[in-house]
Amino acid sequence: MTDQTPDPVLAHALSRRSELLAALTALIACPSDGADPAQAPGMEGARRLVEARLTAMGFCALQRLEAGGQPAIYAERMDAPGRPTILVYAHYDVQPPEPLALWRSPPFEASVRDDRIHGRGASDDKGPMLIALEALAAFIAIDGALPINVKILIEGEEETGSPSMPGLLAAHRDLLDADAILSADGARWRPGLVSINTGSRGNGGFEIAVRTASKDLHSGRYGGVTRNALHVMADLIAGLHDADGRIAAPGFYDDVPDLTDAQIAELAAIPVDMDAHLAEIGAAPFGEAGHSTLARLWLRPTLDVNGMWGGYTGAGSKTVIACEAQAKMTMRLVPGQSPSHARACVLAHLRASLPEGATLDLLADRGWSGANAVPDDHPLLLAAEAAMHETTGQIPVRVRIGASIPLTELIETALGIDTVMFSYATSDEDYHAPNEFLRLSAIDEGLAGWVAVLRRIGAQDAAEYAPFRR
Amino acid sequence: MTDQTPDPVLAHALSRRSELLAALTALIACPSDGADPAQAPGMEGARRLVEARLTAMGFCALQRLEAGGQPAIYAERMDAPGRPTILVYAHYDVQPPEPLALWRSPPFEASVRDDRIHGRGASDDKGPMLIALEALAAFIAIDGALPINVKILIEGEEETGSPSMPGLLAAHRDLLDADAILSADGARWRPGLVSINTGSRGNGGFEIAVRTASKDLHSGRYGGVTRNALHVMADLIAGLHDADGRIAAPGFYDDVPDLTDAQIAELAAIPVDMDAHLAEIGAAPFGEAGHSTLARLWLRPTLDVNGMWGGYTGAGSKTVIACEAQAKMTMRLVPGQSPSHARACVLAHLRASLPEGATLDLLADRGWSGANAVPDDHPLLLAAEAAMHETTGQIPVRVRIGASIPLTELIETALGIDTVMFSYATSDEDYHAPNEFLRLSAIDEGLAGWVAVLRRIGAQDAAEYAPFRR
Repeated sequence: MTDQTPDPVLAHALSRRSELLAALTALIACPSDGADPAQAPGMEGARRLVEARLTAMGFCALQRLEAGGQPAIYAERMDAPGRPTILVYAHYDVQPPEPLALWRSPPFEASVRDDRIHGRGASDDKGPMLIALEALAAFIAIDGALPINVKILIEGEEETGSPSMPGLLAAHRDLLDADAILSADGARWRPGLVSINTGSRGNGGFEIAVRTASKDLHSGRYGGVTRNALHVMADLIAGLHDADGRIAAPGFYDDVPDLTDAQIAELAAIPVDMDAHLAEIGAAPFGEAGHSTLARLWLRPTLDVNGMWGGYTGAGSKTVIACEAQAKMTMRLVPGQSPSHARACVLAHLRASLPEGATLDLLADRGWSGANAVPDDHPLLLAAEAAMHETTGQIPVRVRIGASIPLTELIETALGIDTVMFSYATSDEDYHAPNEFLRLSAIDEGLAGWVAVLRRIGAQDAAEYAPFRR
Repeated sequence: MTDQTPDPVLAHALSRRSELLAALTALIACPSDGADPAQAPGMEGARRLVEARLTAMGFCALQRLEAGGQPAIYAERMDAPGRPTILVYAHYDVQPPEPLALWRSPPFEASVRDDRIHGRGASDDKGPMLIALEALAAFIAIDGALPINVKILIEGEEETGSPSMPGLLAAHRDLLDADAILSADGARWRPGLVSINTGSRGNGGFEIAVRTASKDLHSGRYGGVTRNALHVMADLIAGLHDADGRIAAPGFYDDVPDLTDAQIAELAAIPVDMDAHLAEIGAAPFGEAGHSTLARLWLRPTLDVNGMWGGYTGAGSKTVIACEAQAKMTMRLVPGQSPSHARACVLAHLRASLPEGATLDLLADRGWSGANAVPDDHPLLLAAEAAMHETTGQIPVRVRIGASIPLTELIETALGIDTVMFSYATSDEDYHAPNEFLRLSAIDEGLAGWVAVLRRIGAQDAAEYAPFRR
């Protein structure tokens, strides 16, 4: 902190560290795996704990919002007229705990060891959620009010793809109206690196089948005289990229912006050795020629086959010429690209590459979500960066996520506002794997960060957000 | 028949048509599926029926030959000193009957309808075996002796790959010594076409795995920065053939003989429209440029991927970059090619094509068998052709089999003699599928053919075969 006077709100928050850990332990004990209908009591238990804490903090308008799926929890405190209104987002549901045999302590029983608290949801997102709530609670306890207007939205479908979120947002547009979203979900990129996420790639997937005959053929009776669907599929997949690793579908890059010199310099300055990171998992760097590894990961689109199969795949051998082959593909897209245009380009390219005697069918078309980027000068981004700088002494590195955050785009579409991620989880905390954990250090860092960012936003005027609302 | 005097042996054989059908019905009722241990009683039942018939016919030295698998039945009659000794081959085991639901009458209950006898094994090989045996029986009944020396070998492992046959042949080399083999197995190529098989392609298979990392990777966190094993495998498969459909592995064609003008003319004269046949099953003609469809099927080698898989192949989508992909491949080889050289060429080509950051492992190496061809002027081939010409009025078309007959090569290797196929099954009789049948017309045609070929061989001298024995 640049100011040497201790912040009384932060001091209060830090003094309640053990209460936060107790609350996190109780939340982890609720097996809120929304994918498993048998865990409905765990979902309800988690909701009740969150609701009880919001009530005790003096939040108003506490209610459950439902649109046919798991209820989300809403509450608000509109304490600061003229200051920005921020929707604080988190989720109370967790990933399934399987495979259970790989956990070193039971997934729904918090276990502190090696300065980490282990348990399903510790990092994603129960710990980061409680950090945000306890920072808010400290303002209320010490100042009697929040420095900004806060709406809370804690959903229960994040880990299952938020299926009812579009309906929920549409039905409660006025209630949820805010200047921006500050998310307690969305992990920090690397341990030891102060960073802030400013965007994510879009994605979408589809599945194709190639057919070359009405039935599988014996390779002795037909070998050499007709098409093999596996060869055709291999040719199609091999033709998806050119020799430089660029996606070969004409038109695919139409709306992909060239990297600016500033972006190239910004990426070059990021102190991360991706190639060493790849070497650790036995992988070699590879991708679109002419771009750095980070550029390829964050600012360039990709097209990957995620699964392919056809013919005889059992034990032993079978001399069959397969009549069908299938493949699942997904793309990662960058801001500017239309998912439907990108997909149309790939399909047209596949169809144009199809040899005589083969047909191609589109079997499924899934999960389209556009890319997302917070504007460089968005006031909430600036507030978050300033809070990080203040609490860590370091200027946060602006990073992106190669993956996709459908919720961000969903909210942007439904509410017309941007999301800034401000979670104190870290991406290495095994949050979709056994032995999920949260570093205990994240609690103090997070409380400091949240107190600081709430103060920074409290120093802003709501009007500063108007140009960024759509 | 060119000679208008009825052949008394044939007349006798034809008069016993209903006994032959009764014997076939009894044999079909023995479920001799050697792949299914539960059908051991069916295997034993079939052996006993065959042994009883051989005994009744007056065959000598009846015995079971075993080498750790299903016993083969052996018997002999050395009635004709100075005449050739022919080993007559057939098999008593059948394919599994599954899928049972598709049979219109029970697989192990003979059902005559539409001038066909239906049942598992009717065509492969119980019907053709009984035709051969009943022709032999007619000679014994009318003449009291066979016109040649006959050794009978009826195996029980043909449908399961004859695993103990190499050991059996080695252990009984002297007993099985003969001038050539006349096989009651190996179907006629096309209904309505008088043809004789003069060769088959070799084959062999192997399985490879490509790896690009130590674990599957998330396409958001790694998409664009490293190799995808599915792309690498697709590139490898796509690179197996050049744009002309030729196998691209250097050295693969080293020992493949060019087609002679005579061969090209012979193939062109065969009255079969393969392209129309392909169209019936929704397939288009395709293969090595510069060769006719029949040349590609019979006289040119092939390399086919029979199965490939990797990544996520379940329901829905998963944004995974696969770290591993696998493929099963088989080759069909022509006379002159060494299976091990051909395989080495393909593997070397695959390894040379492998990009940096990927590894290739050979997982399995299976079923190597060389190609086979009966010499053009082999006396048994000439006898068989003459018998066919005599009984049908047509000169048989010499055809080959695109598939592989490992037994032929096995016998050639073990006993140093050639095999001529003389089955009266036809290749469209669904013998590896539900509703297997044998045309009833095959019985009269087959009895006439076998009586004629035995007489033709009886007119030969054993010494004529000496130059062809190795």
